[in-house]
Amino acid sequence: MIQKIQKEKDFTHFDNDGRARMVDVGEKNPSVRTAVAAARVIVSEETWHLIKSGGMKKGDVLTVAQIAGIMGAKQTPNLIPMCHPILLDGVDLHLSLVREMSAQTIYAVDIIATVRCSGRTGVEMEALTAVSVAALTVYDMCKAVQRDIVITDIRLLEKTGGVHGDWQRTENG
Amino acid sequence: MIQKIQKEKDFTHFDNDGRARMVDVGEKNPSVRTAVAAARVIVSEETWHLIKSGGMKKGDVLTVAQIAGIMGAKQTPNLIPMCHPILLDGVDLHLSLVREMSAQTIYAVDIIATVRCSGRTGVEMEALTAVSVAALTVYDMCKAVQRDIVITDIRLLEKTGGVHGDWQRTENG
Amino acid sequence: MIQKIQKEKDFTHFDNDGRARMVDVGEKNPSVRTAVAAARVIVSEETWHLIKSGGMKKGDVLTVAQIAGIMGAKQTPNLIPMCHPILLDGVDLHLSLVREMSAQTIYAVDIIATVRCSGRTGVEMEALTAVSVAALTVYDMCKAVQRDIVITDIRLLEKTGGVHGDWQRTENG
Amino acid sequence: MIQKIQKEKDFTHFDNDGRARMVDVGEKNPSVRTAVAAARVIVSEETWHLIKSGGMKKGDVLTVAQIAGIMGAKQTPNLIPMCHPILLDGVDLHLSLVREMSAQTIYAVDIIATVRCSGRTGVEMEALTAVSVAALTVYDMCKAVQRDIVITDIRLLEKTGGVHGDWQRTENG
Amino acid sequence: MIQKIQKEKDFTHFDNDGRARMVDVGEKNPSVRTAVAAARVIVSEETWHLIKSGGMKKGDVLTVAQIAGIMGAKQTPNLIPMCHPILLDGVDLHLSLVREMSAQTIYAVDIIATVRCSGRTGVEMEALTAVSVAALTVYDMCKAVQRDIVITDIRLLEKTGGVHGDWQRTENG
Amino acid sequence: MIQKIQKEKDFTHFDNDGRARMVDVGEKNPSVRTAVAAARVIVSEETWHLIKSGGMKKGDVLTVAQIAGIMGAKQTPNLIPMCHPILLDGVDLHLSLVREMSAQTIYAVDIIATVRCSGRTGVEMEALTAVSVAALTVYDMCKAVQRDIVITDIRLLEKTGGVHGDWQRTENG
Repeated sequence: MIQKIQKEKDFTHFDNDGRARMVDVGEKNPSVRTAVAAARVIVSEETWHLIKSGGMKKGDVLTVAQIAGIMGAKQTPNLIPMCHPILLDGVDLHLSLVREMSAQTIYAVDIIATVRCSGRTGVEMEALTAVSVAALTVYDMCKAVQRDIVITDIRLLEKTGGVHGDWQRTENG
Repeated sequence: MIQKIQKEKDFTHFDNDGRARMVDVGEKNPSVRTAVAAARVIVSEETWHLIKSGGMKKGDVLTVAQIAGIMGAKQTPNLIPMCHPILLDGVDLHLSLVREMSAQTIYAVDIIATVRCSGRTGVEMEALTAVSVAALTVYDMCKAVQRDIVITDIRLLEKTGGVHGDWQRTENG
Repeated sequence: MIQKIQKEKDFTHFDNDGRARMVDVGEKNPSVRTAVAAARVIVSEETWHLIKSGGMKKGDVLTVAQIAGIMGAKQTPNLIPMCHPILLDGVDLHLSLVREMSAQTIYAVDIIATVRCSGRTGVEMEALTAVSVAALTVYDMCKAVQRDIVITDIRLLEKTGGVHGDWQRTENG
Repeated sequence: MIQKIQKEKDFTHFDNDGRARMVDVGEKNPSVRTAVAAARVIVSEETWHLIKSGGMKKGDVLTVAQIAGIMGAKQTPNLIPMCHPILLDGVDLHLSLVREMSAQTIYAVDIIATVRCSGRTGVEMEALTAVSVAALTVYDMCKAVQRDIVITDIRLLEKTGGVHGDWQRTENG
Repeated sequence: MIQKIQKEKDFTHFDNDGRARMVDVGEKNPSVRTAVAAARVIVSEETWHLIKSGGMKKGDVLTVAQIAGIMGAKQTPNLIPMCHPILLDGVDLHLSLVREMSAQTIYAVDIIATVRCSGRTGVEMEALTAVSVAALTVYDMCKAVQRDIVITDIRLLEKTGGVHGDWQRTENG
Repeated sequence: MIQKIQKEKDFTHFDNDGRARMVDVGEKNPSVRTAVAAARVIVSEETWHLIKSGGMKKGDVLTVAQIAGIMGAKQTPNLIPMCHPILLDGVDLHLSLVREMSAQTIYAVDIIATVRCSGRTGVEMEALTAVSVAALTVYDMCKAVQRDIVITDIRLLEKTGGVHGDWQRTENG
């Protein structure tokens, strides 16, 4: 049965012999493409308040992380082996402090990146790399006060453009 | 009250005026330091089996991700603004396919990185960057067959060495 | 009054909430663009003569600086956070030893960079980065003989192409 | 006469045949070294006020430039051909808006970088690169409102440590 | 006579004054271009068998070298001073163990890279850099067992597209 | 029999499960280490004369290649996956035009790199990368006049320092 799946769907980053390759996208037409990705950094109540109070001053945690994320997006093809180099048209990165009241209150930094290009390949990896680098930077800026921070829910929210068309994450996706 | 917390614990990456800086570690003595970090990539049953069957051939998803993670560890100071450049003594990165049988079976790739150095700063960020880049690479290699993959639980498991001594993550940490 | 200025003219690298972003240039049409930038490195008479006499041999200061400047132009998007990656069509970098006879004779290395592309964003930053890296390299090559070298007058001389049209520096600009 | 100068003082970055090289520092003892460098970005009154008012919001020009400068310091050996790779112990970068009342009022952003290491080579180039990249970033963030900004006075203020001992810039140096 | 040759054929990477430059390709039309390059790594019989037996396990020498080569292709403009940045459409890298029976049996790893783009400049340098980095990686992975490995025959096999048209290496070329 | 070889000698860049890793060198003592590597670029008689005549002017092929090679040495850990980051103490790179009169005269550029460090790992890869990048740059600078240039004989000539002691290439090695 798995065999059948493989015939229909397969990893494009491997050729028929199983060798990794950077897939040829030369036949694809350039088109406007966007990708939106998100990540969450779960922190303690104490860390959350420290980030929040620091936000009153310039040079706060969220700003450093935001700039790191935008610069990180540009490093994607240097980090992910089979990623194509791409000319990013724009990167928007937003970090916000959130507090979710439930049985156990969750204190977190939520990160959303929107990346746009006009090229032959999508920008999912650029958006995912942007939120990951921003999340790692939040960790780095806070690790002196809390070591057990967790980065979670790095995921694609939506993409538009390209051969396979638009895609949006469903709630339970 | 927040005020009081700030007096006891504070972000070392900011000076008294709130400006970000790369903290001076020149007075710290070089010592052997290690850090172990982990990440989990949650995939569908179908993707899980595709990765598994590909693993029989050379050039499989896990190998590409493993090499990307090791190379990613070396890019840490170029990605995280306030990270010190550091001479890594060794990087070990392990990816494994796991299947957790519970109410709803979880199919995942688990990633663990162990990083060692003999320097003035810890290598937590290098270990966390290694697992993040490896996880992003798993995503990239599989995104043609599944878009709603989630990277989760990027966290420090333990660290040894340095002024603050050893630290180990507790179960509910 | 400042308020009024802000309404008319504003930093495009920030959104309405004041967060930095890489501006979306996707709607701009690709066009041929050029930028010419300059810098001056003021050295002592002794250093000036050393550079000059070295220029007779291969591997002289000006050649090393020229190559560094051309390579530096390509690093612009990795150095300047909000800069778009861009495909440079050409980079021309010229260094010359100048001696300006006035009340006090000025001994200097003058640097001019011309950068061209066919893209959606201008290449001012690439030209300015090229002359800056070349100037820093002149400093590095000469610092063993003179420490109080000054790099000055890093500026845009002219630009062509793009939405805002051509621009040329005026004498007192 | 020039001949005589060359015998006493010479560029260490060239060998006897005039070929550029990365000088061997292996025989030097590691020691604590610091370098302080500065730069000035001269802007119009209008731009100066825009930067100032933006500074009230997070993500302002000076913060982006400050982070870029710190990250730029780490890129020094990749930009300056004969620079040794070095483990920076710390980088401090300070940007401030200054207004000098004289015959003609000068509106500027002043940048100062302090870099520290415990190694075999000095960190002058790292400090100079930090202020240069920060200055270029100020330019980039403001170029939509003013094109004739000038970066000037990139210079070393002082250095400590190393074989040649401490050095401080004199007023007219 | 040399004089005459120079008039007909000349290095395009230098201007009339002999200064190096990144040639302006802005007037060239974008077209589909490919380049195929090759390299050979000559190893001992013992090393050859070790590589071969390792190939049964995941993470073998050839896979690590293949990924390094693909990533290396993307670093070409950062390594080769006058190379234009380029958007690679695809990179295919193949390593194979060969044994040539002749008077003295040759044990080797043969490497072939195929690179494609749709741009204004060719991708010869990208293909040559890919095989070189892959070859260096084979050396690195094997140097603990054999130091006198030789990398040889790095050469262009063919290129298509561009102003000068297609080109193919002849046997004795 | 192969089995037996594997027990005695093995690739240190793989662990017992065959996974690639960056070997832990933390237990090694820092010591002075050097490595000398070489490469040869075989060109046509015409190209050889063009390089030679260009050498009279500043900015010639050999100088550009020399600087590229020195800068390339610093990129080694970013190119070779399992290479440790290392603080190079010095890099010396020499290119020379050679003409070997034999049955068929060989026209070539010979490249030799000497690299030194005081660290925990050797610098063979840095020396080999330096000569490779210099050789690729010679190719790039000359490819407009000759496409069938061959880079050959990239090899280690000698190394000193480290646990395994000194090593020198034998004539037929």
